[in-house]
Amino acid sequence: MTPSGATARAWRRDLHRHPEVGFTEFRTASLVAARLAELGWEVTAGHAALDSAARLGVPDDDVLARAYDRAGADGGDARWLEALRGGHTGVVATLRGAAPGPTVALRADIDALPIHESNDPTHVPARDGHRSRYDGAMHACGHDGHVGMAVELAERLGAAPPPAGTVRLVFQPAEEGGRGAAAMVPAGVVDDVDVLLAAHLGIGLASGTVAASVDGLLANTKLRATFHGRSAHAAMAPHEGRSALLAAAAAVLAVHAVAPFPGHETRTAVGAVHGGTSSNIVPDRAEMLLETRADDGEVNAEIEARVRRALEGAAATYDATVTVERIGAVTTARADEAAADVVRRAAAATGLEVVVPTAELGVASDDATALMRRVQTRGGVATYLAIGSDLPGAHHTSTFDLDEAVLGPGVDLLEHAVRAALTGSPRRPAGPGRAAP
Amino acid sequence: MTPSGATARAWRRDLHRHPEVGFTEFRTASLVAARLAELGWEVTAGHAALDSAARLGVPDDDVLARAYDRAGADGGDARWLEALRGGHTGVVATLRGAAPGPTVALRADIDALPIHESNDPTHVPARDGHRSRYDGAMHACGHDGHVGMAVELAERLGAAPPPAGTVRLVFQPAEEGGRGAAAMVPAGVVDDVDVLLAAHLGIGLASGTVAASVDGLLANTKLRATFHGRSAHAAMAPHEGRSALLAAAAAVLAVHAVAPFPGHETRTAVGAVHGGTSSNIVPDRAEMLLETRADDGEVNAEIEARVRRALEGAAATYDATVTVERIGAVTTARADEAAADVVRRAAAATGLEVVVPTAELGVASDDATALMRRVQTRGGVATYLAIGSDLPGAHHTSTFDLDEAVLGPGVDLLEHAVRAALTGSPRRPAGPGRAAP
Amino acid sequence: MTPSGATARAWRRDLHRHPEVGFTEFRTASLVAARLAELGWEVTAGHAALDSAARLGVPDDDVLARAYDRAGADGGDARWLEALRGGHTGVVATLRGAAPGPTVALRADIDALPIHESNDPTHVPARDGHRSRYDGAMHACGHDGHVGMAVELAERLGAAPPPAGTVRLVFQPAEEGGRGAAAMVPAGVVDDVDVLLAAHLGIGLASGTVAASVDGLLANTKLRATFHGRSAHAAMAPHEGRSALLAAAAAVLAVHAVAPFPGHETRTAVGAVHGGTSSNIVPDRAEMLLETRADDGEVNAEIEARVRRALEGAAATYDATVTVERIGAVTTARADEAAADVVRRAAAATGLEVVVPTAELGVASDDATALMRRVQTRGGVATYLAIGSDLPGAHHTSTFDLDEAVLGPGVDLLEHAVRAALTGSPRRPAGPGRAAP
Amino acid sequence: MTPSGATARAWRRDLHRHPEVGFTEFRTASLVAARLAELGWEVTAGHAALDSAARLGVPDDDVLARAYDRAGADGGDARWLEALRGGHTGVVATLRGAAPGPTVALRADIDALPIHESNDPTHVPARDGHRSRYDGAMHACGHDGHVGMAVELAERLGAAPPPAGTVRLVFQPAEEGGRGAAAMVPAGVVDDVDVLLAAHLGIGLASGTVAASVDGLLANTKLRATFHGRSAHAAMAPHEGRSALLAAAAAVLAVHAVAPFPGHETRTAVGAVHGGTSSNIVPDRAEMLLETRADDGEVNAEIEARVRRALEGAAATYDATVTVERIGAVTTARADEAAADVVRRAAAATGLEVVVPTAELGVASDDATALMRRVQTRGGVATYLAIGSDLPGAHHTSTFDLDEAVLGPGVDLLEHAVRAALTGSPRRPAGPGRAAP
Repeated sequence: MTPSGATARAWRRDLHRHPEVGFTEFRTASLVAARLAELGWEVTAGHAALDSAARLGVPDDDVLARAYDRAGADGGDARWLEALRGGHTGVVATLRGAAPGPTVALRADIDALPIHESNDPTHVPARDGHRSRYDGAMHACGHDGHVGMAVELAERLGAAPPPAGTVRLVFQPAEEGGRGAAAMVPAGVVDDVDVLLAAHLGIGLASGTVAASVDGLLANTKLRATFHGRSAHAAMAPHEGRSALLAAAAAVLAVHAVAPFPGHETRTAVGAVHGGTSSNIVPDRAEMLLETRADDGEVNAEIEARVRRALEGAAATYDATVTVERIGAVTTARADEAAADVVRRAAAATGLEVVVPTAELGVASDDATALMRRVQTRGGVATYLAIGSDLPGAHHTSTFDLDEAVLGPGVDLLEHAVRAALTGSPRRPAGPGRAAP
Repeated sequence: MTPSGATARAWRRDLHRHPEVGFTEFRTASLVAARLAELGWEVTAGHAALDSAARLGVPDDDVLARAYDRAGADGGDARWLEALRGGHTGVVATLRGAAPGPTVALRADIDALPIHESNDPTHVPARDGHRSRYDGAMHACGHDGHVGMAVELAERLGAAPPPAGTVRLVFQPAEEGGRGAAAMVPAGVVDDVDVLLAAHLGIGLASGTVAASVDGLLANTKLRATFHGRSAHAAMAPHEGRSALLAAAAAVLAVHAVAPFPGHETRTAVGAVHGGTSSNIVPDRAEMLLETRADDGEVNAEIEARVRRALEGAAATYDATVTVERIGAVTTARADEAAADVVRRAAAATGLEVVVPTAELGVASDDATALMRRVQTRGGVATYLAIGSDLPGAHHTSTFDLDEAVLGPGVDLLEHAVRAALTGSPRRPAGPGRAAP
Repeated sequence: MTPSGATARAWRRDLHRHPEVGFTEFRTASLVAARLAELGWEVTAGHAALDSAARLGVPDDDVLARAYDRAGADGGDARWLEALRGGHTGVVATLRGAAPGPTVALRADIDALPIHESNDPTHVPARDGHRSRYDGAMHACGHDGHVGMAVELAERLGAAPPPAGTVRLVFQPAEEGGRGAAAMVPAGVVDDVDVLLAAHLGIGLASGTVAASVDGLLANTKLRATFHGRSAHAAMAPHEGRSALLAAAAAVLAVHAVAPFPGHETRTAVGAVHGGTSSNIVPDRAEMLLETRADDGEVNAEIEARVRRALEGAAATYDATVTVERIGAVTTARADEAAADVVRRAAAATGLEVVVPTAELGVASDDATALMRRVQTRGGVATYLAIGSDLPGAHHTSTFDLDEAVLGPGVDLLEHAVRAALTGSPRRPAGPGRAAP
Repeated sequence: MTPSGATARAWRRDLHRHPEVGFTEFRTASLVAARLAELGWEVTAGHAALDSAARLGVPDDDVLARAYDRAGADGGDARWLEALRGGHTGVVATLRGAAPGPTVALRADIDALPIHESNDPTHVPARDGHRSRYDGAMHACGHDGHVGMAVELAERLGAAPPPAGTVRLVFQPAEEGGRGAAAMVPAGVVDDVDVLLAAHLGIGLASGTVAASVDGLLANTKLRATFHGRSAHAAMAPHEGRSALLAAAAAVLAVHAVAPFPGHETRTAVGAVHGGTSSNIVPDRAEMLLETRADDGEVNAEIEARVRRALEGAAATYDATVTVERIGAVTTARADEAAADVVRRAAAATGLEVVVPTAELGVASDDATALMRRVQTRGGVATYLAIGSDLPGAHHTSTFDLDEAVLGPGVDLLEHAVRAALTGSPRRPAGPGRAAP
């Protein structure tokens, strides 16, 4: 028998070599769908797994097309690729037990980040040959590990299906930026879920530890602001130009000057500005990517309002205009004690140490919260759990790497939790709208 | 016989459809070289026409390689392309009369701009089918017309060579940004020139007029500033990041706040900022293109010093660093009355009205000044002349277009001026270092 | 007998009418000293009560002189004024019981704020005639109430001295800005204190409630930054000027862009900028008042370092220089459970409700922490307690006002706590340096 | 007889010791009025000499009152002070010849600047005892010399009145900032003037030279912008504050980023920002003094529009508001050749060298242009002339000083010009509205 963690590691390394950013996970999703179908799971993908119109921040058509072609050339599974075309890269797999019972779901996010991976010889993926083959893309948040663990879990459950109840695996695209979960919710993929587990590797916990619930996830809004000015020759007619970059520069400073809210974690950040082509042309267009966060949805909404006002004001200052598009949105969510308890018991059973997350842990965001809220709204329970992994470099940096030794115990934990939840959880009462996806 | 202006117009339209920005003019230069060789001119190109190391602001190798391949695919002349590889896109052609005599040169710049051409039906190139085929590149400063006129001039002179003296056509790459002339000067292409004419279409003059000398050309320095910070997760560890974009934003504002110098035309401009990839990563790198200008070289040097100080200070403010590279440099130059007089007499002979340029005319820069200064240093005379053209849109904008009716009269003017200069100009005394290129 | 709170209210109203900002509390301190001496307390004031050189942010000599003269004219006590001259406005009063015993101290801060008090008829001090008579100064943080309560407490204790132990009242100048306590510590005024109580009215608690300890006080650094440029005629020679205001403006934006520290309350703020005299003179000088805060001293130190870097960088950006002076510094401190317990018991005895302060409560700073740390270092215990008061306007705003009904219960609470502490507290072991001030 | 220049020098030194800024020239104006009345001139002052409501940028009442009191204490003439109260500090004096004839006027501006005079021993006024006695005020533009020359001229003409025609001396307050002339025009003080001479000392010309006309005077608009935010405790409730200083800081940078207009001298400048009182209070108010200039009235109007837009936008960026008040306005004007010719002839007669002003000379502004335009509109002629003076320090700096040796020749020149104009100038035809003031 394959040793625990072997499948997870093999998948993780393959995906690490082929990182695909949000909504371009054609290769990843097609391989996952193909493998789970082989393993006997019911698989849906593409439009059936997500609501096309509800996606946020979808890349341009030509970006999608290039990524799609690359996936075909790099070993994507042709049987599933067509369904995913155009950035419909969600996959949902279901395994039904012989008898009725609760529905237990695990969410695994599948996307990579637009980061250039380190080529330093001390960086293990560089040393061992699984460094990203795609320049400027990298699995720098461990989602490759999430997929690897979910696939190994699927193998184990497929080989020994639970006697009762249903297991659902939700492979979600575009977690980064908070763009994918919002599209899977309206597709109903968790509408019948009684217990939802959303697991993340790393985030500050040491190898060998588990946090059964992480409650400090921040609400997060991601915006694309496009400043429009008027171009002119910078030397012959500067007075006829209106620089979109002057507006953007003033906006960068203003966005970072939004005041803190006492008692709250809050953030504003400009992550990118791109404008202009040549030193002698007044730039008529500049695009900015920015975000706001807070540990409270209303505070985040207020901060978003202030940021939008700052963008408008900065544009007006330089006689430019700005259009602002929301390209990502993540809410907050609270873990249910009942779901966290399942995790705690699974940790005890599999020898992992349960730790309480520190304040520093929870300051990221994850749009798993949208799935969690949906489950909770419909009567189920949910938790966001963290599986510790020592990290040589921080999340979202070029030297991030997983401790692969945690993958096997991680799958053990998840398997135990899923099986326990199937047995121990009360089913929610059936009701209108409750149906498998 | 071909009507006056027909060749110029045909070439201009072909080049307008195939605009190539600085140092990527592979198709343009190869076609020019091939045609002039056919016409019996001595032609040199590539390393023989410019000093490779003296080029400023050469694009990255992959940009050069892609443009080179495109030129081959789009009809570039295979006999000349190889010499131009790697961004050596200068061409020099010489026609010698039977008897010795003065050397008269015309400089034609050949590069396009990184501007997206208008597709409005009222824009004549869009309407008539010679709009740019290359997205994001456009002949928006009339250099296509300069080349067209020079080729037609070459035809006429080739068909009826002057009895005495030498004619030189200098096809210069990368005028935009002030990057090409500096490389042709050390190659010696104007070292033996007695009279240099550098002609520009448009620049504020109406069709049917000529300015025999334009003296207000501004000194110009182009810089690329690269800000380096430290990346971090914008929500989990903002305090560990150092935003290169905050530094760049402060720099944009500071560069535009450099004080004017009474009695001088001065300019500072940031034309482009590119930094960051994602809203949730503190950007560790931002690149800026900027420039300074002044009607006096010392004032421009002082402004450059202030701009560099502003860049350094802005970086330090946000605990970032900045590296500054000079990617273009243009000096000022004065026209010689003897050279301007040749133009005035040619205008009178060909029915064009001589006008005195207004203050607004001369505020651009042109690195023809480097060639002019070289000629003047070695005892020759030079002028920068303007051939009027009504313009529907300003230089360096997406609706720029030439009045093609001025091309024929323009060639008439240039032919007359060249022939007159060959006859009427004193030869400079021969001396050390005086030799044909 | 005078009803409880009557003396406190009378003093409070008189002081409210005569607000004196930090180190100019000549009238206030002289009246307090005179009254406590009358009541039989040992009183020291001026150089005996604070270390002159350890004061931070002392006003200019002429400001001190004008305030001193005003105090004399407005009823300051001539017997004590001379000792206070030059901004030595601390007063310490001691009452010794018949028998030895512990030393219990209460700190009352005495200074007002540079705020223009509301003259709105709905503002009670305006309606009832005790609005500030001094334009631009106002008791907008309740220190007038602190002094009033302390004086009434002195009356009560003077009338019925405790049988054993010592009571000390520390009237501290210049709490605002964190400037006075640092000067009283080296004068030894709390070196022999076993139990220190520092009380504040308001700060978010309702009338009738008490918080026995407030632990979230922020470390705080106050800076004065002076930017130096070069003046010039703004129209005739702008290029010869170096604007201190451009530098200051860039600094304002940079100070507000310092990143948050996850898990910490942090603040940066520019509170004032003053520079320039005339629109046509490039301003050569601009003065800025700013501050940093954090709930952790090391974090505050790091933020101060970043702010200083930002000030330097902004100055350099505009070819100016900056000098930065620390004009206030407040550390954090933790309450001792033993001291808080005294307060809780006193609250129970006097019918006030004990509440637990919310996160929002503790985000201010108070340099009482310097006194607390000193007491703790020498073996005593301390707490910072809050006595609730409904407020029509927030602290530090023009409509701030105390609910005077809380003054009597407040004195009851303090009296009870002091008497209980005298009885119930263990004396610290005597040791080197332990002596009354 | 008093040597030429002696009176001018004595007055100049007295006024230099007692500099009074715009609309506070109580001592200056009262002394001038008293002396000219003694000399037999018809004198009007106060409301009769200027339109109270048309004054721009009048200081606050308490500033006016303090200056008025000081003037009384420092030797102001009590007979005239009352008429000047409240900032009505204009004086007009008229001397009528026996016979009718043209009216010739000289304008002398009388105000000082808010500059702290150098106390360096190399600064002649400091060395010789006529340094400013008023801290923060200084005659740093030579108006003390203008008044001195005008008084000596009045003595000479009073002693030997012209046989025909009328001479008018216009002593104008508040030239700095362009605030006084606009108020004298509607009072009609130049409505009957046939020839107006406005003279300025220094401005770049060497001692012994004269410029008969200075044409490059810039249009100038002076603004006071007041930003309104909301105050809050910077640590306890920063999110409730709206910083007027953040808005002002962004505005400072934006005002200085207004683009130049090719072919024009243009200026924008922020000269002062004052806001906030304390580091821990979010400042709710900030006042800014700023200005725009251009060598063309329409360009200046466009720049003013852009500056106002920048102020509004910057305020909106930080959720603040701004009110903008125009506190000074100066137009451009052209000299009449007939008036300049009078000066040239006077220079020839008195041995001064006539020079042509350079470009650098004319970049200041002077609201004499308002008087010139009025004279020209009503059919008279005018010129703005410059009387050279070597200067140890530039205009509007702390080391500015006149070369007093030029005062005598300057009076000679003016006397000659006035007498020549009375004789040689055609009278304008009488018409409606033409009357002595």
